[in-house]
Amino acid sequence: MTEDFLSTAESLVAIAAGFHLRGWVLGTSGNLSAVISREPLRLAITPSGADKGALKSDQMLLIDEYAEVLGNTGGKPSDESLLHVSIAKERLAGAVMHTHSVWSTLLSEQHFDDGGLAIEGYEMLKGLAGVKTHEHREWLPILENSQDMCALAEQVARTVQQHPEAHGFLLRRHGLYTWGANIAEAKRHVEILEFLLETAGRARFRA
Amino acid sequence: MTEDFLSTAESLVAIAAGFHLRGWVLGTSGNLSAVISREPLRLAITPSGADKGALKSDQMLLIDEYAEVLGNTGGKPSDESLLHVSIAKERLAGAVMHTHSVWSTLLSEQHFDDGGLAIEGYEMLKGLAGVKTHEHREWLPILENSQDMCALAEQVARTVQQHPEAHGFLLRRHGLYTWGANIAEAKRHVEILEFLLETAGRARFRA
Amino acid sequence: MTEDFLSTAESLVAIAAGFHLRGWVLGTSGNLSAVISREPLRLAITPSGADKGALKSDQMLLIDEYAEVLGNTGGKPSDESLLHVSIAKERLAGAVMHTHSVWSTLLSEQHFDDGGLAIEGYEMLKGLAGVKTHEHREWLPILENSQDMCALAEQVARTVQQHPEAHGFLLRRHGLYTWGANIAEAKRHVEILEFLLETAGRARFRA
Amino acid sequence: MTEDFLSTAESLVAIAAGFHLRGWVLGTSGNLSAVISREPLRLAITPSGADKGALKSDQMLLIDEYAEVLGNTGGKPSDESLLHVSIAKERLAGAVMHTHSVWSTLLSEQHFDDGGLAIEGYEMLKGLAGVKTHEHREWLPILENSQDMCALAEQVARTVQQHPEAHGFLLRRHGLYTWGANIAEAKRHVEILEFLLETAGRARFRA
Repeated sequence: MTEDFLSTAESLVAIAAGFHLRGWVLGTSGNLSAVISREPLRLAITPSGADKGALKSDQMLLIDEYAEVLGNTGGKPSDESLLHVSIAKERLAGAVMHTHSVWSTLLSEQHFDDGGLAIEGYEMLKGLAGVKTHEHREWLPILENSQDMCALAEQVARTVQQHPEAHGFLLRRHGLYTWGANIAEAKRHVEILEFLLETAGRARFRA
Repeated sequence: MTEDFLSTAESLVAIAAGFHLRGWVLGTSGNLSAVISREPLRLAITPSGADKGALKSDQMLLIDEYAEVLGNTGGKPSDESLLHVSIAKERLAGAVMHTHSVWSTLLSEQHFDDGGLAIEGYEMLKGLAGVKTHEHREWLPILENSQDMCALAEQVARTVQQHPEAHGFLLRRHGLYTWGANIAEAKRHVEILEFLLETAGRARFRA
Repeated sequence: MTEDFLSTAESLVAIAAGFHLRGWVLGTSGNLSAVISREPLRLAITPSGADKGALKSDQMLLIDEYAEVLGNTGGKPSDESLLHVSIAKERLAGAVMHTHSVWSTLLSEQHFDDGGLAIEGYEMLKGLAGVKTHEHREWLPILENSQDMCALAEQVARTVQQHPEAHGFLLRRHGLYTWGANIAEAKRHVEILEFLLETAGRARFRA
Repeated sequence: MTEDFLSTAESLVAIAAGFHLRGWVLGTSGNLSAVISREPLRLAITPSGADKGALKSDQMLLIDEYAEVLGNTGGKPSDESLLHVSIAKERLAGAVMHTHSVWSTLLSEQHFDDGGLAIEGYEMLKGLAGVKTHEHREWLPILENSQDMCALAEQVARTVQQHPEAHGFLLRRHGLYTWGANIAEAKRHVEILEFLLETAGRARFRA
């Protein structure tokens, strides 16, 4: 493995442990990836079934654009690796992160019939890449969940094409996907969107 | 004590400290065990009355199938040791974990008259052993709480026999029991079920 | 200072830091004490105005039964030291702990007109000293808050005399007082009562 | 940089990490400053766009009263630096802190039409500088949010002049500003006001 892979793996492992502490990737849920090279496409990604609070960087996997593992690590990549590949390709994202929080799970169900969830008017939105003012309306599309990962990866590709301004989307009763130009930006987007989902969720309870 | 016991004890102690931090085993509540040998049945188990945030591995006890302590440790096993033995026997579980969270306590009361609580349609369910899709309905039986541990252990045995597909159950106004083939799986089941109970609890408040 | 004082001070400081992390003693609120000797009465107690997340054991103070500081530490004991002395005397408590959580604050207001709050039927109650079954009814008296510490200390003395079975009480819009035969028991009572107050608070929201 | 700047920078970085853990400054939100000298006015301040959970003290910036960076650090000060300068000048504050919590965000919207939010009768209020009793009514003005920082800084100056007794204010759908005579006092005010906002928010949900 290259030095680039190793330092990327270490960064993702540290972020995974922090998300686990916050309850965003409990029970081996969630997965994180980062692009190591674009031509050919290579991603460092968390393995399937790993406890994110106890993950070691030598468990991290290198995959290609078909989500096939390169090298002899013996691990299995996340079932949702194809979704990471789709987003890395369609958005030219440098990193993709997926969390399963209580609030994203709840809101993905409550707003499913609307096709998505609008969050607007919050200062916190300014932390999303390219957003310059709180007077911004972020539309988080919500997709039906599925176990057919090829079909879901295609639908993710279509969704992010149809919503080029979106910074993330929800899978119904499943969780949040977001991404960024690099690992730091993707992590920032997770924190911002999870914050806004909790805020929207608590405001809705009041309503 | 064997090396196997010592490494098991250390694993359980680390998990107990993590659960304590999350507020799932406050005030000496909760208990964790793992099977050391099956013939004869031997379990490593947390002692009665221990602060799970300050537990040391040399406080861990070795018990037999009658919940009698083996060796001269001077400690007393958890009052609920017989429940751990019942589950280890009936489910051939490698580890049994019991937590007292706010949400499991609340839901065990609110759904008691229904005999249990159904949780379905969540991706997080896929983290339960043998579950391959979010289109799964998990039924968590709820048992009346009791201080007669022999009677309760028998009722636990009957409940897990009657619900061979269940991954856990609730004791009324008391908490969650779950288990797994090994320590990692049992810990994963705790995280998943506690997540789903919080999610179900918050959704119900909205209803 | 004696060795006994120093080890007691270290224990209280570690517990204070843990409570601060949980949000139970934010903003210099809360105070912890333990009896060093009973004849004459001497308590180790947290100083007034200290950040409980950054407290050092050499800031801890030794006070007598009039809450006067012994020795030349230069610190000022908590304004509420007389309440600690009252409880240490009336209950022969070895340690007294006072927390300001969100849930104790909310419930101390909502149940003030009832004179107190009953918590019953929860397994967690068994962690309170002397309680052998979940079929226990704990009555937490609620006292009007006051800045007249002499008068409040007297009222605390009367309250704990009138409710000899109580393990704690609430001050209105202020927080929880509990105690124990020793530091470990007092800490356990804090965790149990804070858990039960959160549970009662969330159940009430549902009602 | 002077030794004073360095120790101030280290204190602010440690506080920022603690606030990040509590979820009060997620996603690079929030900013902290402290006065290094008053004639001429010099502030140490967190840089724009920094992850508060990973901030290093050598990223901290020294600014003047026009929020211009002094020295060659290469960093950009927070967009909201002029607000810090306004508060440092008008209040003779030694430190200014700004957090974005879920509860401050929610309440800043729910009470916007009232022009502010009153919090009264809580013991925790005594932790605010100069408050001697729980029988205190704290008025937290709420200002409309804006991206015009010069205008907003002027409005902040007017607001703190009009409310000389206030210990903080909210920006609508944005967060809390508070301050203190020194870093410890400002941190204490953050903890107290965040606690009271959560308490007020949960009480309101019940209402």
